[in-house]
Amino acid sequence: MDAAPHPSPALAARYRAVRAHTEKLVATLSAEDQALQSMPDASPAKWHQAHTTWFFETLILQPLLRGYQAFDPSFQYLFNSYYEALGPRHPRPQRGMLSRPSLDEVRAYRRHVDAAMLDLLGSAGTGQDLTLVELGLQHEQQHQELLLTDILHAFSCNPLLPAWRAEPPHRFPEQPLRWLPHAGGEVPIGHEEGAGFAFDNETPRHSALLQPFEIANRLVNCGEFADFIADGGYRRPGLWLSDGWATAQAQGWQHPPYWLAPGDPRAPSEHWQVFGLHGVQPLDRAAPVTQLSFYEAAAYAEWAGARLPTEFEWEAACRLPGFAPCSDQAWQWTRSAYHPYPGFRPMAGAVGEYNGKFMVGQLVLRGGSVATPPGHARPSYRNFFPPAARWQFSGLRLARDSSK
Amino acid sequence: MDAAPHPSPALAARYRAVRAHTEKLVATLSAEDQALQSMPDASPAKWHQAHTTWFFETLILQPLLRGYQAFDPSFQYLFNSYYEALGPRHPRPQRGMLSRPSLDEVRAYRRHVDAAMLDLLGSAGTGQDLTLVELGLQHEQQHQELLLTDILHAFSCNPLLPAWRAEPPHRFPEQPLRWLPHAGGEVPIGHEEGAGFAFDNETPRHSALLQPFEIANRLVNCGEFADFIADGGYRRPGLWLSDGWATAQAQGWQHPPYWLAPGDPRAPSEHWQVFGLHGVQPLDRAAPVTQLSFYEAAAYAEWAGARLPTEFEWEAACRLPGFAPCSDQAWQWTRSAYHPYPGFRPMAGAVGEYNGKFMVGQLVLRGGSVATPPGHARPSYRNFFPPAARWQFSGLRLARDSSK
Amino acid sequence: MDAAPHPSPALAARYRAVRAHTEKLVATLSAEDQALQSMPDASPAKWHQAHTTWFFETLILQPLLRGYQAFDPSFQYLFNSYYEALGPRHPRPQRGMLSRPSLDEVRAYRRHVDAAMLDLLGSAGTGQDLTLVELGLQHEQQHQELLLTDILHAFSCNPLLPAWRAEPPHRFPEQPLRWLPHAGGEVPIGHEEGAGFAFDNETPRHSALLQPFEIANRLVNCGEFADFIADGGYRRPGLWLSDGWATAQAQGWQHPPYWLAPGDPRAPSEHWQVFGLHGVQPLDRAAPVTQLSFYEAAAYAEWAGARLPTEFEWEAACRLPGFAPCSDQAWQWTRSAYHPYPGFRPMAGAVGEYNGKFMVGQLVLRGGSVATPPGHARPSYRNFFPPAARWQFSGLRLARDSSK
Amino acid sequence: MDAAPHPSPALAARYRAVRAHTEKLVATLSAEDQALQSMPDASPAKWHQAHTTWFFETLILQPLLRGYQAFDPSFQYLFNSYYEALGPRHPRPQRGMLSRPSLDEVRAYRRHVDAAMLDLLGSAGTGQDLTLVELGLQHEQQHQELLLTDILHAFSCNPLLPAWRAEPPHRFPEQPLRWLPHAGGEVPIGHEEGAGFAFDNETPRHSALLQPFEIANRLVNCGEFADFIADGGYRRPGLWLSDGWATAQAQGWQHPPYWLAPGDPRAPSEHWQVFGLHGVQPLDRAAPVTQLSFYEAAAYAEWAGARLPTEFEWEAACRLPGFAPCSDQAWQWTRSAYHPYPGFRPMAGAVGEYNGKFMVGQLVLRGGSVATPPGHARPSYRNFFPPAARWQFSGLRLARDSSK
Repeated sequence: MDAAPHPSPALAARYRAVRAHTEKLVATLSAEDQALQSMPDASPAKWHQAHTTWFFETLILQPLLRGYQAFDPSFQYLFNSYYEALGPRHPRPQRGMLSRPSLDEVRAYRRHVDAAMLDLLGSAGTGQDLTLVELGLQHEQQHQELLLTDILHAFSCNPLLPAWRAEPPHRFPEQPLRWLPHAGGEVPIGHEEGAGFAFDNETPRHSALLQPFEIANRLVNCGEFADFIADGGYRRPGLWLSDGWATAQAQGWQHPPYWLAPGDPRAPSEHWQVFGLHGVQPLDRAAPVTQLSFYEAAAYAEWAGARLPTEFEWEAACRLPGFAPCSDQAWQWTRSAYHPYPGFRPMAGAVGEYNGKFMVGQLVLRGGSVATPPGHARPSYRNFFPPAARWQFSGLRLARDSSK
Repeated sequence: MDAAPHPSPALAARYRAVRAHTEKLVATLSAEDQALQSMPDASPAKWHQAHTTWFFETLILQPLLRGYQAFDPSFQYLFNSYYEALGPRHPRPQRGMLSRPSLDEVRAYRRHVDAAMLDLLGSAGTGQDLTLVELGLQHEQQHQELLLTDILHAFSCNPLLPAWRAEPPHRFPEQPLRWLPHAGGEVPIGHEEGAGFAFDNETPRHSALLQPFEIANRLVNCGEFADFIADGGYRRPGLWLSDGWATAQAQGWQHPPYWLAPGDPRAPSEHWQVFGLHGVQPLDRAAPVTQLSFYEAAAYAEWAGARLPTEFEWEAACRLPGFAPCSDQAWQWTRSAYHPYPGFRPMAGAVGEYNGKFMVGQLVLRGGSVATPPGHARPSYRNFFPPAARWQFSGLRLARDSSK
Repeated sequence: MDAAPHPSPALAARYRAVRAHTEKLVATLSAEDQALQSMPDASPAKWHQAHTTWFFETLILQPLLRGYQAFDPSFQYLFNSYYEALGPRHPRPQRGMLSRPSLDEVRAYRRHVDAAMLDLLGSAGTGQDLTLVELGLQHEQQHQELLLTDILHAFSCNPLLPAWRAEPPHRFPEQPLRWLPHAGGEVPIGHEEGAGFAFDNETPRHSALLQPFEIANRLVNCGEFADFIADGGYRRPGLWLSDGWATAQAQGWQHPPYWLAPGDPRAPSEHWQVFGLHGVQPLDRAAPVTQLSFYEAAAYAEWAGARLPTEFEWEAACRLPGFAPCSDQAWQWTRSAYHPYPGFRPMAGAVGEYNGKFMVGQLVLRGGSVATPPGHARPSYRNFFPPAARWQFSGLRLARDSSK
Repeated sequence: MDAAPHPSPALAARYRAVRAHTEKLVATLSAEDQALQSMPDASPAKWHQAHTTWFFETLILQPLLRGYQAFDPSFQYLFNSYYEALGPRHPRPQRGMLSRPSLDEVRAYRRHVDAAMLDLLGSAGTGQDLTLVELGLQHEQQHQELLLTDILHAFSCNPLLPAWRAEPPHRFPEQPLRWLPHAGGEVPIGHEEGAGFAFDNETPRHSALLQPFEIANRLVNCGEFADFIADGGYRRPGLWLSDGWATAQAQGWQHPPYWLAPGDPRAPSEHWQVFGLHGVQPLDRAAPVTQLSFYEAAAYAEWAGARLPTEFEWEAACRLPGFAPCSDQAWQWTRSAYHPYPGFRPMAGAVGEYNGKFMVGQLVLRGGSVATPPGHARPSYRNFFPPAARWQFSGLRLARDSSK
């Protein structure tokens, strides 16, 4: 994270905009909706709003704003996510038990912190290091995406399958699959110092060596994935990684988690339907398939006679003509484990726990999604999830070795 | 259940009163509070309000009120508790996921059903069998108690330990322990036909043969239980039943679940405190100990050189001078498994699932509690829970064999 | 347990006979077979042989035989079953990990203890209390039954389904079902003091009050149980207790655990077959059905329009003409929880843990089984298992209320 | 795997030698020992002997030896490990239930297959493709290592802590830690075609790009690891990856799994001791620490101000003067996920399941261990285990970035 602090007035405007965006996301949600935690990996929308606020309070206001009064001392415990250096915290699987503080109190907390933050940002030129403000905003943007994927998961557990957004989704145009060739060789990887904000896990910039490869111009779509299902994709162990097959059997996977098979009693139809931010909709064959685990993405690629790109191929491909990162469609599982780049150093202080300590057991996803706030993603961005995770807007893009 | 149907005007008044009591119980709770489900055995307050309403709609209005329109057909699925004969239902552990329907919708549901019920009750003299109305009201009263014990459990999972009631609790007067002798012999057990409402599990009335015994005039109190703890009660396997000791070790029991040991970070104090409907309070030595499992009750009795009474001894003792059932204090674990009485017949129809199918794996509790609606309990009432259950107002009363 | 000590020569002969019977039971088993533990509730045959020996060593030889040298001090830890008063012990689920001591060493242990015991029994007239010797022998007989049921369970986990005994089983003659009426009233229950050995849980003798009832002259047989299955017995929740239905669904029960449905790949056939001590055999319609849980027994009785007898009815029925306890066929689930008799006192000392501490969460079985050593059972004998247990020779006998 | 088939006489000699080595490993083990399965990830020694034999029978004899008669058709099911293409198989966690076939029968199975294999290998020059024979031998060598680590784990579950080998272990000489610098740059990685046997996962050979780094000349030893423990290594979350810390807390890790803390009741001592192939021994400070999880290895490296090498650094370091791979000491966790090399193709046929399908969720270990058969390991060898695995001879070697 090497962003120079913005000049404060611009930073204050940006602060206001990012914070307002969070509140816009929850505008259609009731207090009851915002308290839901449907699994340990997901958090209530209310918690997301409080936790992002806690970040500003704990890491910026308390050290930097003279005379700052914490809104409520118990929030230090309630809304810490995973920072061991910042003391004990409420257990993650119990976040849905917090009917108190109420949503109204959390909103008051946000206003309290916003006022103090704008106060701090308004007193520019004091020589204070505001680097962490931008980190706090990027952090809030990450939680904006999680807030959406988490509420969607919670709604998927309600037999009524409520819609986050009432209006119908836009339909995707059909787009033929084209293979874009890349010559391979030594390519630069990672965030270029001085080029705006990046997380520490995108650094240091370094070179990687690639074999020649080809990569698809677009994401795998729902029509193609329906063909995979129809061809026995979920019943043929030979297509799957061993852990993937075991997981799929143990959990009874037969299609992506938010797909409704024909005849599903929750929304009777003779055709495939897909539950999403707009509620239950007929399957759009041209729309990118999402909410896939890495295992399903890898099985699909095997079935298609292709493979997933590595995160280095993906990043290099961003410079190819005709390549669209599809950062407003779906995160794309890569064939790369989430490990540190050579020479990686975590940020100093408590925020050093931000990324580095998660660097095992996860796979890198690249791109961005329909739930990613505009302007948040970039080609060097490294998202990461365990291979069985199935509640993100996660899909795939095919790659293959160049034929000789 | 052999209650003759009340004359309808009285029944209508009673209907109004019982329903109003439910709503009074939730008056201090937010919509977020009422959506909480803190464990599979507990249900959200909102669910209790909807399920009791579903009972009237499904078992009374739909068969008996001509032209009745269901409020929402999906509620048939969402709010069935366990009646296999009434179709599939929302899984119990997922009741906390129902942010929709909202609390407001559930309240509208109650009003809709209330209007129809009062309509039905007002059209008296039609020769319709209103027997199930009283069952529905008794059912709602049972859920009034569960609503309180469930919200209390949910609040106990919140580090803020909110109070259901703001005002301080009344303190119990010290009361010396006295042993009341009973001569034993053949005693009548169970509900006397024609004597008002009873559940089917209290029938048929029959005789039981008792040895002479003595029973305590009052419940074990918190001071006595604190002495048990201080004397190593939770560390001495010889006091415990085998399953109890295994459970206590596996779950790390060291005191009743809502007791706060001196130094508990949630509410620092040098003394024992107890969390309850009034929030965290200093331990009242004269108050009955509650939220005990059967295992803890049995271990305490062993430590005290006594035993638990059987449910038959308890019921017979009700006729002893000086015996108070303490039905507004705490349910009292008995040394009786919850099994059918000789000649037991479940009610006819879907309500036959009400009691009989739970007659294994549970122990009988007698009495009533601070959470029991006034007028609901009676000497022949059989409450029942598994031996490890620890979230009810469940305590104990001692008994012992008569010395020769 | 009130047996007067046998005169020592007779006791020595009995000691030899009981010990020899254990060894006869394992004659067809390899060292590998005898080390198997197929689930935490079961123990290896080798462990049974060592544990019964440990009982004599710890409770009799060490206190009573001057100069006795323990065979191996580590056995005190390895072969204690559940006696908290006798120190820590090897965890039950890990008994199958004890490849050392070897079977040969365990046999040497038995010989060492046998020599010392016979030495002790031979020095009669010394005024020593030998009461516990008979308890040790009864204890070993109980383990003889468990040894068989445990090895059978272990073999059932081997796809080869080995037979404990090579020779074919005898076939049962068809026997018509007859109902034996009992007039009810006050009946004596429990062991009569002075009438030979009994466990503490059979005491004290006391009276119970029975309603008139009828009880079947024989056990439910496999043919009848096959009819229950064919009539949808495992698919109709209305026949089951709630816990039973939940367990049956969670574990996928469709027939008794050792039955092989037609087409089972382990032993292809077009007909039902049953695995047992004699390996896989065609279903014998007249043989008693065994390896039932209480839940299945209760569901069958419901289906048959009858019920299970209470343990008191069963014991009273033993005095009816034409009633056979079938103690060499199968234990019979009763509709009675395993609780203490009125006035129950456990044995003094460490053996007080023998029975009393298990008196919750279990149901009483009466009778005896093909695996029970001859002479071990008696009408007042109370066997007990949790309601889901399915690896004993446990079946059922029907009862019903007398029609008026 | 691109080994040209050996000339058959040499191959026959090698076959005999490898098979004999397996039998030598089990010479000190009883039939009971060889039947132990102490966790789902481990297999009984008997099973290892049968499974390696099944590999030759199924993949070589049945397709290639005309007239070959399978030893026992049921072994196809019992001893398949994970080959979906070769039909259903006995569930892995149930391998310890196979008291039948007996060890003697498994030995007869080995002799039967050995005779047929030597028959096949003796009929050289027939133009048959014997490529898979060498794979079968390498496969058996892998199981030789697992056989040892699995029996060691089983013995570690026995409170007697038996020794696999009676004689005392050799003591390691103290060796100072030296840092060997590597200049980085493009390095060749993977198996060189034509240079003897390799598994498919070591191919294809390709180039990797390295930053300058330094790597330790030797492994981290027990003395250093004891210092880590003494310095609070297991109590400081800041040293650990997040998954590692969660695992360590959930499982109560306080030291490597086979270390006995001072005072351990199984082998009382005032000092650290270590259980291993030679039983319980005083901690040898100069011996490499083993049985570490990746999580512990990574935490140690963090504590030491260093890091783990990537598998590419490790392989490149093999060409450095002064670098010893320590392939007879311990496998070395690397900071590399087990993923396919660019252009990776699995072997054709059923053996294509050998490696590729495990390429997610695991980390690469390089080197070899005291349990690895001599001649089996090589610099390009990729061993792999999940990060929490703690029963292999797995330790670590430090690396660090070159200072500028």
